[in-house]
Amino acid sequence: MSRTYATAHEALTDLVRLVPNFPSEGVLFEDLTPVLANGEAFRVIVDELAVAAEEMGADMIGGLDARGFLVGSAVAYKLGQGILAIRKKGKLPPPVHSRSYELEYGSAALEIPANGIELKGKRVVLVDDVLATGGTLVAARDLLEQCGAEVVGYVVVLEVEGLGGRERLAGSPLVVLNDR
Amino acid sequence: MSRTYATAHEALTDLVRLVPNFPSEGVLFEDLTPVLANGEAFRVIVDELAVAAEEMGADMIGGLDARGFLVGSAVAYKLGQGILAIRKKGKLPPPVHSRSYELEYGSAALEIPANGIELKGKRVVLVDDVLATGGTLVAARDLLEQCGAEVVGYVVVLEVEGLGGRERLAGSPLVVLNDR
Repeated sequence: MSRTYATAHEALTDLVRLVPNFPSEGVLFEDLTPVLANGEAFRVIVDELAVAAEEMGADMIGGLDARGFLVGSAVAYKLGQGILAIRKKGKLPPPVHSRSYELEYGSAALEIPANGIELKGKRVVLVDDVLATGGTLVAARDLLEQCGAEVVGYVVVLEVEGLGGRERLAGSPLVVLNDR
Repeated sequence: MSRTYATAHEALTDLVRLVPNFPSEGVLFEDLTPVLANGEAFRVIVDELAVAAEEMGADMIGGLDARGFLVGSAVAYKLGQGILAIRKKGKLPPPVHSRSYELEYGSAALEIPANGIELKGKRVVLVDDVLATGGTLVAARDLLEQCGAEVVGYVVVLEVEGLGGRERLAGSPLVVLNDR
């Protein structure tokens, strides 16, 4: 219960909940819920994410709806910065800036408010829990850049390899915590 | 841009985005996105929420999917505690603990993992952005209590009055930041 962790990698190895065949056959789902619910593990993960975001020159953190909020919020707090919630379509009142993107079947969109937030010239680091195909992160980057911000990097806790995510994000630095 | 705020109330007064008739006619939606995206405002809000949660005797923070994650995560980090993500139905791999509740039209459910998180004897403070009817917070409390935890209080940023939320939560302390 009161075990401490020297590194995020150690906490992840101990606490990630591995569930085969979710959400579909053949996929091994890595559930971070127990990691984040553990105060010691959560602290070391947030601290390492924050170091990475700071090294990229962040002055604002972008969190992806919904699991990106769980890590992005604490990272922003730790750095004394704001957390920009990048929402799924339909959650925010108008007016919004919106960006559509393709899914395996159909499409989706991300939205942020179109007033009340100054994004021009902001240096945003995008934070999420897991990098898979990278489609959502690319859409979030495009959305922020269309609003005048610069996405200076990506920090994620875990990476699912072999889905092309890393390649899709090429051009800006990427830190995967579990690789460190 | 670099304005500082002495209290959460001051930050909220300055930065909440008020949008009439969303999500339905006659409702005045209070969008906190610009508040959370502002580093100074976010800091004072998290600090005040954390003081309230600490005074209630929290040793774990429960955050409600999805906007509760945006504040709960930073509050948990500030207190050196874990953030328990209380998810909407279908987001988590099995096995889960689940609790259904009634909506105006139809029903919904909240879920948490059924293994990997020790909840017995935990003192949880539930954190959310806005208290409206309180239905989701009540369901979250019931879910955690069915897992052996004790919900020792509720802290929210804003309250929509006249929807019975405060009455539904009676029995445990409630702090609404904007009232302080």
